[in-house]
Amino acid sequence: MNEYRSLNPCCMLSPVPAVLVSCRAAPDARPNALTIAWAGTVCSHPPMVSVSIRPERYSYDLIAQSGEFVINMADAAHAKALDYCGIRSGRDEDKLAACGLTARPMPGMRTAPAIADMPASLGCRVTEMKPLGSHTLFLAEVVSVQVREDLFDADGSMHLERAGLICYSHGVYQRAEGVEGFFGWSVARPEVYRRRMVSYSSDRSDHS
Amino acid sequence: MNEYRSLNPCCMLSPVPAVLVSCRAAPDARPNALTIAWAGTVCSHPPMVSVSIRPERYSYDLIAQSGEFVINMADAAHAKALDYCGIRSGRDEDKLAACGLTARPMPGMRTAPAIADMPASLGCRVTEMKPLGSHTLFLAEVVSVQVREDLFDADGSMHLERAGLICYSHGVYQRAEGVEGFFGWSVARPEVYRRRMVSYSSDRSDHS
Repeated sequence: MNEYRSLNPCCMLSPVPAVLVSCRAAPDARPNALTIAWAGTVCSHPPMVSVSIRPERYSYDLIAQSGEFVINMADAAHAKALDYCGIRSGRDEDKLAACGLTARPMPGMRTAPAIADMPASLGCRVTEMKPLGSHTLFLAEVVSVQVREDLFDADGSMHLERAGLICYSHGVYQRAEGVEGFFGWSVARPEVYRRRMVSYSSDRSDHS
Repeated sequence: MNEYRSLNPCCMLSPVPAVLVSCRAAPDARPNALTIAWAGTVCSHPPMVSVSIRPERYSYDLIAQSGEFVINMADAAHAKALDYCGIRSGRDEDKLAACGLTARPMPGMRTAPAIADMPASLGCRVTEMKPLGSHTLFLAEVVSVQVREDLFDADGSMHLERAGLICYSHGVYQRAEGVEGFFGWSVARPEVYRRRMVSYSSDRSDHS
């Protein structure tokens, strides 16, 4: 039996998603993006997510007033921009320009843009804001989804797991790698297990 | 500029944590555990998490009535148990026994146990339940934290990033691997960057 060390209560749930959340006050305003790790899926039907934001952040008012934001999932190519957009403020500078990022239109959004070239983006419409303490919880419905074309095989199957998506583990950014199994693998028949696992091989995307 | 494919709105935020949530109706009742990927950190001060659970799940009432649960983070050694406890129900069997898992006491909890031998556990006290649709959102304050001793260096520094924690990416379980950088690395001085990155080398734990 392993031994454990007790620590003071803190935010240690890991890994959590490290995503770039993009927003804009109005359709013709300058787009902004901030990095959020306090994000998650909260409901399947309807599909809903939550993001938690400090009220003093520049993007807080942009999202509260527009009622919209886009969650952009990041890969290693965007890891440095992800960190930068979590440190600096859109009050002081154009963070997208500073990181060489480009806004692109996102279906279903009136104001919030997506960030170009990232693996996947979710258009989200705020349904409720709930102050919790240092952070306010934004609940939102996912109204649009876009995934980069290179993450699909020729047969139409999507392989988000090949993107090497970035997550956050108590102070550091890591990559989601490999496939330990698929939902249901622990009770799958051996032939189903083998067939499914082959489809997750990262080599396969090059030959499809 | 990359091309994108639009999909129907769905729960695609990835990676999200894949954790084993343990609970118990009363201190002398049989412990149960269910797998949750709809989990996240929602506030820093006080430290708060959310988990979303379908009302028809066996653990729903256990958590609603006891007002407590423990989030246990999983590594590759527990990946199969993680999947199994997301598929099967504690109504029908003793899932901990079926997976060879053992409950252990968790500080700060009256009823909910931790699961032994997992990398880290968070004792959580429910503050609010909010029905959203298929799932009910449980907001909870983190009141206790325990981390496995092998994840500390001799100097007391904790390295949760070495655990290879399991996450969930749209249907598959992956591992959080490597260190792309630490919070603030994009604006850190070169000597700070080098010193910090050395501390994340996975070799170091063997020599400390």
